[in-house]
Amino acid sequence: MKKLSVVKIGGNVIDDPIKLSNFLKLFKNLENAKILIHGGGKIATRTAKQLNIETKMVEGRRITDTAMRDVVIMVYGGLVNKDIVAQLQRLDCNAIGLSGADAGTVIAEKRLVKAIDYGWVGDIKSVNENSINSLVQSGFTPVFAPLSYSQKDGLLNTNADTMASAIATSLSEIYEVDLIYCFEKKGVLNNPDDDDSVIQNLDYQAFQDLKNNGVVYQGMIPKLDNAYEALRNGVRKVIICEADSLDQAANNTAGTQLSL
Amino acid sequence: MKKLSVVKIGGNVIDDPIKLSNFLKLFKNLENAKILIHGGGKIATRTAKQLNIETKMVEGRRITDTAMRDVVIMVYGGLVNKDIVAQLQRLDCNAIGLSGADAGTVIAEKRLVKAIDYGWVGDIKSVNENSINSLVQSGFTPVFAPLSYSQKDGLLNTNADTMASAIATSLSEIYEVDLIYCFEKKGVLNNPDDDDSVIQNLDYQAFQDLKNNGVVYQGMIPKLDNAYEALRNGVRKVIICEADSLDQAANNTAGTQLSL
Repeated sequence: MKKLSVVKIGGNVIDDPIKLSNFLKLFKNLENAKILIHGGGKIATRTAKQLNIETKMVEGRRITDTAMRDVVIMVYGGLVNKDIVAQLQRLDCNAIGLSGADAGTVIAEKRLVKAIDYGWVGDIKSVNENSINSLVQSGFTPVFAPLSYSQKDGLLNTNADTMASAIATSLSEIYEVDLIYCFEKKGVLNNPDDDDSVIQNLDYQAFQDLKNNGVVYQGMIPKLDNAYEALRNGVRKVIICEADSLDQAANNTAGTQLSL
Repeated sequence: MKKLSVVKIGGNVIDDPIKLSNFLKLFKNLENAKILIHGGGKIATRTAKQLNIETKMVEGRRITDTAMRDVVIMVYGGLVNKDIVAQLQRLDCNAIGLSGADAGTVIAEKRLVKAIDYGWVGDIKSVNENSINSLVQSGFTPVFAPLSYSQKDGLLNTNADTMASAIATSLSEIYEVDLIYCFEKKGVLNNPDDDDSVIQNLDYQAFQDLKNNGVVYQGMIPKLDNAYEALRNGVRKVIICEADSLDQAANNTAGTQLSL
């Protein structure tokens, strides 16, 4: 089986032009065929504010009403995605920007309203690995904005970690997939106050212990839940690392590697 | 040679959800492989206004300063492009949205500053017909936003008529290409005040006469100049028609057909 790297880059890095540019150089240099999934960052909140649209967050997740949906389509699908594609093209990486609607790649359902109405938010139902693979086979590097697609409801705001996990899992039918989550910390930390206390290898039981002790908390929990789910479903390797260390993480010399 | 239809849909139709939806149904039903190029419409001007960015037009062309470039990338590359892609997907047409940066498809240079500084506006230098063709061969229907790409300057605002003409010309190396410009009139009119005075066939000399008599004027002149340029450079057929008549125009029973 050929190898494929699925890399997710988070919003905090996207908000920092120098970090983003450095990261894209490292991404471009990955040897395997590759796919990038990017988060949104604060530009959506800033743009919404300029448009007098109020940003409402619940547990770190954006409530996406109709006005906010237009904003995330503009900002994630337009501004951020095209900026990354243009930067990669300049680095001679033949990037192609996609939402889940493009080429019918990432299909979702609008989240059911329970205690909270998240609005136009999608839960992923399927990924069309053949569509994505035909792009990879043509020599393109797919760059996904965190937007999925429902035939009934159109484009839906979607968590980028979940997009990355679903895309990596689906492509593990065709490739040996490494899934690499890049963010602003060096990995999963043993001590949240010590940036150098990176756990090199974290198995599922140890993760449960860290969760119970409150060492791993907030946004890190769904990120890791997604990551273990991907491992259980055929992804060969999952690493969580700092964006600046993507090259080392790809060679297993930085970040936290997860195991079951 | 296989046949390919390159269709351009103008801003006025994009501003009208019902007309756009009807048009996309006709587009979807075209038998040949196909490519869509869309204009911008008034959403960019409206969004710019909401963001307190002033819109400056010279001879119907938008001056694209840095703030306006972000707006057109968001609106053309994000909102409008993804809306059209989502609508086509719903119609079971496997659309994939692109700017000229995506897959390195449409390469331009920033327009030189002469009497007027248009800002971040691109003049197309080349189209990568092999990249576009690999998408068509994979069964996708490319949908282009009017944005080209320069390695030096990034994404550039570009006239959609020119994008359509350049893409059609380039793909005529591989396909028998029909180029169809869809807009809000029934074709080129013999009498601008009579919407039914459609000229069925307009050769280049007759166009010059209409231009000299002032019958054809304003935005129609560069549109037709582009169209004849495409005919001279290998495009098999060029038709100008109403968006509602795309099906008939494709069968030569509506619109104005151009000849040299």
